[in-house]
Amino acid sequence: MSEIGIGLVGYKFMGRAHSNAWRQVARFFDVDPVPRLRAVAGRDEANVRAAAEQLGWEGYETSYQRLLERDDIHLIDVCAPGNAHHDIAIAALQAGKHVLCEKPLANTLDQAREMVEVAEASGKVNMVCFNYRRAPAVQLAKKLISEGRIGQVRHWRAVYLQDWILDPQFPLVWRLQKDLSGSGALGDIAAHIIDLSQFLVGPITEVIGTLNTFIKERPLEQASAGGGLQASASTEMGQVTVDDSTTFLARFENGATGTFEATRLAPGRRNFNSFEINGSEGSVIFNLERLNELQVYLTSDPEDVQGFRTVNVTEPVHDYASAWWPPGHIIGYEHSFVHTVKDLLEGVKANQSPAPTFADGYACQAVLDAVEQSASNRQWASVQTLPVAVSR
Amino acid sequence: MSEIGIGLVGYKFMGRAHSNAWRQVARFFDVDPVPRLRAVAGRDEANVRAAAEQLGWEGYETSYQRLLERDDIHLIDVCAPGNAHHDIAIAALQAGKHVLCEKPLANTLDQAREMVEVAEASGKVNMVCFNYRRAPAVQLAKKLISEGRIGQVRHWRAVYLQDWILDPQFPLVWRLQKDLSGSGALGDIAAHIIDLSQFLVGPITEVIGTLNTFIKERPLEQASAGGGLQASASTEMGQVTVDDSTTFLARFENGATGTFEATRLAPGRRNFNSFEINGSEGSVIFNLERLNELQVYLTSDPEDVQGFRTVNVTEPVHDYASAWWPPGHIIGYEHSFVHTVKDLLEGVKANQSPAPTFADGYACQAVLDAVEQSASNRQWASVQTLPVAVSR
Amino acid sequence: MSEIGIGLVGYKFMGRAHSNAWRQVARFFDVDPVPRLRAVAGRDEANVRAAAEQLGWEGYETSYQRLLERDDIHLIDVCAPGNAHHDIAIAALQAGKHVLCEKPLANTLDQAREMVEVAEASGKVNMVCFNYRRAPAVQLAKKLISEGRIGQVRHWRAVYLQDWILDPQFPLVWRLQKDLSGSGALGDIAAHIIDLSQFLVGPITEVIGTLNTFIKERPLEQASAGGGLQASASTEMGQVTVDDSTTFLARFENGATGTFEATRLAPGRRNFNSFEINGSEGSVIFNLERLNELQVYLTSDPEDVQGFRTVNVTEPVHDYASAWWPPGHIIGYEHSFVHTVKDLLEGVKANQSPAPTFADGYACQAVLDAVEQSASNRQWASVQTLPVAVSR
Amino acid sequence: MSEIGIGLVGYKFMGRAHSNAWRQVARFFDVDPVPRLRAVAGRDEANVRAAAEQLGWEGYETSYQRLLERDDIHLIDVCAPGNAHHDIAIAALQAGKHVLCEKPLANTLDQAREMVEVAEASGKVNMVCFNYRRAPAVQLAKKLISEGRIGQVRHWRAVYLQDWILDPQFPLVWRLQKDLSGSGALGDIAAHIIDLSQFLVGPITEVIGTLNTFIKERPLEQASAGGGLQASASTEMGQVTVDDSTTFLARFENGATGTFEATRLAPGRRNFNSFEINGSEGSVIFNLERLNELQVYLTSDPEDVQGFRTVNVTEPVHDYASAWWPPGHIIGYEHSFVHTVKDLLEGVKANQSPAPTFADGYACQAVLDAVEQSASNRQWASVQTLPVAVSR
Repeated sequence: MSEIGIGLVGYKFMGRAHSNAWRQVARFFDVDPVPRLRAVAGRDEANVRAAAEQLGWEGYETSYQRLLERDDIHLIDVCAPGNAHHDIAIAALQAGKHVLCEKPLANTLDQAREMVEVAEASGKVNMVCFNYRRAPAVQLAKKLISEGRIGQVRHWRAVYLQDWILDPQFPLVWRLQKDLSGSGALGDIAAHIIDLSQFLVGPITEVIGTLNTFIKERPLEQASAGGGLQASASTEMGQVTVDDSTTFLARFENGATGTFEATRLAPGRRNFNSFEINGSEGSVIFNLERLNELQVYLTSDPEDVQGFRTVNVTEPVHDYASAWWPPGHIIGYEHSFVHTVKDLLEGVKANQSPAPTFADGYACQAVLDAVEQSASNRQWASVQTLPVAVSR
Repeated sequence: MSEIGIGLVGYKFMGRAHSNAWRQVARFFDVDPVPRLRAVAGRDEANVRAAAEQLGWEGYETSYQRLLERDDIHLIDVCAPGNAHHDIAIAALQAGKHVLCEKPLANTLDQAREMVEVAEASGKVNMVCFNYRRAPAVQLAKKLISEGRIGQVRHWRAVYLQDWILDPQFPLVWRLQKDLSGSGALGDIAAHIIDLSQFLVGPITEVIGTLNTFIKERPLEQASAGGGLQASASTEMGQVTVDDSTTFLARFENGATGTFEATRLAPGRRNFNSFEINGSEGSVIFNLERLNELQVYLTSDPEDVQGFRTVNVTEPVHDYASAWWPPGHIIGYEHSFVHTVKDLLEGVKANQSPAPTFADGYACQAVLDAVEQSASNRQWASVQTLPVAVSR
Repeated sequence: MSEIGIGLVGYKFMGRAHSNAWRQVARFFDVDPVPRLRAVAGRDEANVRAAAEQLGWEGYETSYQRLLERDDIHLIDVCAPGNAHHDIAIAALQAGKHVLCEKPLANTLDQAREMVEVAEASGKVNMVCFNYRRAPAVQLAKKLISEGRIGQVRHWRAVYLQDWILDPQFPLVWRLQKDLSGSGALGDIAAHIIDLSQFLVGPITEVIGTLNTFIKERPLEQASAGGGLQASASTEMGQVTVDDSTTFLARFENGATGTFEATRLAPGRRNFNSFEINGSEGSVIFNLERLNELQVYLTSDPEDVQGFRTVNVTEPVHDYASAWWPPGHIIGYEHSFVHTVKDLLEGVKANQSPAPTFADGYACQAVLDAVEQSASNRQWASVQTLPVAVSR
Repeated sequence: MSEIGIGLVGYKFMGRAHSNAWRQVARFFDVDPVPRLRAVAGRDEANVRAAAEQLGWEGYETSYQRLLERDDIHLIDVCAPGNAHHDIAIAALQAGKHVLCEKPLANTLDQAREMVEVAEASGKVNMVCFNYRRAPAVQLAKKLISEGRIGQVRHWRAVYLQDWILDPQFPLVWRLQKDLSGSGALGDIAAHIIDLSQFLVGPITEVIGTLNTFIKERPLEQASAGGGLQASASTEMGQVTVDDSTTFLARFENGATGTFEATRLAPGRRNFNSFEINGSEGSVIFNLERLNELQVYLTSDPEDVQGFRTVNVTEPVHDYASAWWPPGHIIGYEHSFVHTVKDLLEGVKANQSPAPTFADGYACQAVLDAVEQSASNRQWASVQTLPVAVSR
């Protein structure tokens, strides 16, 4: 069994989730190469040293460039804020490293295009961490669609609802600043349901939407070593420069309609990433807060017992499930990252980028871009495609 | 189309529900004979006159005996408290009337036996109003079991949970007095799940259980014209002489196990009559608060989409459903009474007592009796059967 | 207690539901005047005679004009297809009758405007039968919003999903023909969620949307006496001229965002009329298939027990509930019509049109109209308002 | 920060879950001492070596005695089948090791008593791994009860339903052999709900129940290296010597009633460990398949919005939750083991056995024992207590 050296950039929320995935994957799956957690990079030495210790990394570096120089590191995992993705990923690819990059791929469509170009030129394995694709319930939805079991897809409707910034006193963290995060609910959470929609239904061709900021000012964040979701407020106020919510309609290439909404202002919805797909012969419903379940309706059921069934996707027949626990013993949020790096390691072995590749990341970014454009000029916007079609 | 004259005894909660059934049945079902709401009987003339007017009866009588004397009344519907069932039903049968009797059939097993004997000797149609049998979801459960689609039944578990007497200041209404009601949660609500269990699984042969009274004293009820569930309290206290709750285990003739619990002290459970049945090839779950749904699990489903499905039992294929509204337009509690009198009218036409007959009422009463005995002597109690087996 | 003579036009699905409401209202509510079911009108004499008998009307007429001529009829209930609403309602108002009109008010916005004008000039009571406003759960949502208990409303999202025309062999009934029905899912079911949205959140100012027809041809309907939802197919095909589905975004006057989708092609969704409202201090969720429940989330709950609660809206404190059964004994679809006519009768007594008035019906029609316009020209469309503001 | 050497006995289902807990605990919690995974013991050297590698142990031993001899091992974690618990735990305690023991504590009550005595004499930290106590939702239930927020507890009802041996061809694994496992559903899964009931409601004083074996013969298991839940069948049959299911009633010391059922023959119920508790002022409901949720009903809620709320127990205010992910990002089954060893490490630090101690394990065993006795002699059975009361 061979090893692969991993270098991580960033150690906050996403860095913790990715570290866990790298630590756990070989405990539950037969992977080859086996990941070796070489080093995590961050600018504050005290913090990054503590993070390395806490998260199980052998060492640390105080700049991502130092990771790139190391021969014992073969794959760079980019968990920095969105505005840093472009530079780090390109440098890593050019240094001959494989790259796993957090979503959304970039803060602009131009950046994303360049990242795809560099990735394809590099010949290295590249992947965007849209981890929810690898929830077993989402995989089951994909399988049912691919096998034609819900027929031709006609409707996609999805919401991603959260409420963590409901309090107007919640401070102006980086995720609320456009220059750092690119956008608000759109890039942070709508990006997930856009990716899922294109994974499950196919390419989106046009959109029209809105971006909405209800709470226009918030207290500045006080300096802290903590992660992006726990923060303390100062008394000075600053402008919120991103959207609190977005709504948009979409048309898919196959003729299906799509509706999307993402908001961080839905009281009681902690992390409600939910979609419903209606085909000509069945429907499926997913909800991330109950990620071990998929609701499935099939018109082929006997007439007197038709109904949405709640499939507990923990059976051996379900993707990834048998690696964990017996049926009915549910898995958690972070397991989707373990599945992601498991498939990435297989991609490294085969020297083939597993979906979602950077090109898929671009396809998501193009929708984000079109939504922003449509919100700005109040017109339907076509979704850009890459000059040369990239097979998915 | 012929007519049948109906005489009702009692006009409170059950009297209202039955009146509605008699009024509505011919509007939604093709029944023959068509019921004619001749008269309602009650002792207080002002109240019974008002009730007749309100509930749609052509007239009223101030005693049930007066109903029996009338030639234009052919069926007596007994909605009086349990301690009156025996005398009224027997007198009605002996007067040559068909009888529909509220549940439980009687306050003692001896009374029930006598009622069965008189009913069978009379040759008149007799039925006990265990209305929940005729919820379409329950009918679907019955059908699935009868057709062998969930295999051999091994487990029955049922609860009937309410909370309407949770407040210790709720007064000592007739349902809390043993001499009037026979028992508390046992006869009032456990009776329903006992009847359902014997309808769906078959005869219970033995039981062991408990009867529990947590609130031992309550304010006496102030005189009022109101129904049994809304009442006002005086300052004087009286002894609660019935059970607040009951728990019991059962063994069915076919080897299945049963667990039962009924209580009126379950906060938040307004009317939670719920059962689950596990067979060798499937399961069903019912809940009266969502009475338009049956949860169904079948081992014959494809391996990757097994799960409990929620069947909305409002399709044409479901019993009684097409008489009402299009699929998905749900029906309410009182509709089960409409279904009951619809089938009763068919029984009258065919001169055959539809289940649940008085003999079925006896079979329920025998379980109630056995539970009381087992609670008293702390031993398993055999369930009595009628000398001559009555086919169900 | 006085009486009011009712005349009904149409006796299929809606006619049956309204007849039930008129029959039942005085049995459960103290109404004054008490409705008297004088006559139902329809063109086919055999059918209308049978309907009158079945549905409990004293007599029948073979044209609606004949109803208008009768002095013993004071209120006309219009349950004919949408293309007939305008003429019947105006004639009835001009004949001095009060009018209850099924939704949507008309097939065009011009017709609707004229109907409002005539209604207001007539001084008669007028109402549109958007019956779901009077589901107790919807009333509770209204109350929570009105009392400020969920704060300032920011998001409305609603779907109305059905699947009754999923089978491509389902015939071309009147609801699928634009000249008769005006539109498809839009006017039939989206109209309901539009009305609910304006009832609960306030006026919609602009929309953009799509109309989609997936199954473009269907068998012609064979002549039959049956209702609109059960039909038999011929072998000849005809063009579907209405939308199978619609999706649209909306902006409310108060700044809230709205998303809407209605479709008749959602497998497994029998009658899924569901909305979610997010305010600054709470959220509510409604689903017509479980119409006795409202999901409520309040930020004011203690920190450790925050969550959506399922309120069973059958308590005395809930609107209309105490007229029916004890808590937890649920009501059905048709009860919302009983509530509607109950309030209409109070409006007659007070000579004041209860909401939703024809002006409210116009407000809904204006949104339907704007959606159609936006779907056609792919631009955001402003919602028309009446020249003189009508208070709601 | 100090270290503590851990030695594990057994590496199948439970061994995997415990290994994960030991590996993960210091990554998410600040523990002191930090566990060091010294060695796992098993009899088959090839298998145990592979397990050590796979599960992250530094080394292995081919007998548990070898673990006890090592100075660098301070805590023995017993994940062997139930018939081995007694000997291993006692030897470990006598060798001066702290002990964590899987449940149920022993195969007989006498064994359990001896284990408590040795444990208490030893002065070492002892704990039984009833891991579900440490699901955050269960902790919340405990908190609500302790703070009096649901009032005086009157009813406990619990089921633990599985279906993994539904297929009569599923082989006769060790869990179906009384000499190895002690009992069937009773000791394996009813033990969990018994422990939860005594944790949440208090001591059980008496029980009466049944033990049921529906499938009396099964194919013998073919030799395999696999875990207890995945097995292959031979053609030879053997006797099932344990219960497929158990039902029992209980009385708690505080007067509450209890109902319990556990079965492995409930189709569709993969791992449905569910309880409901009714107090005088509220209720709670838990279901392991949705372990991130607790249903809570409080009579103190405003009258018009009373209902069971679904609390997503992933807020900072909920026990253990802030160590993991942001709100709404759910955790899985295995996390309850991480919480267990986290608290055990604190117990080691404080030299105090955290509940559930061996004495608590005895209390559970005493109920198991009483259920068996009552099933055998058909009499209510008193639950034995330890000679000297052990505070819980």
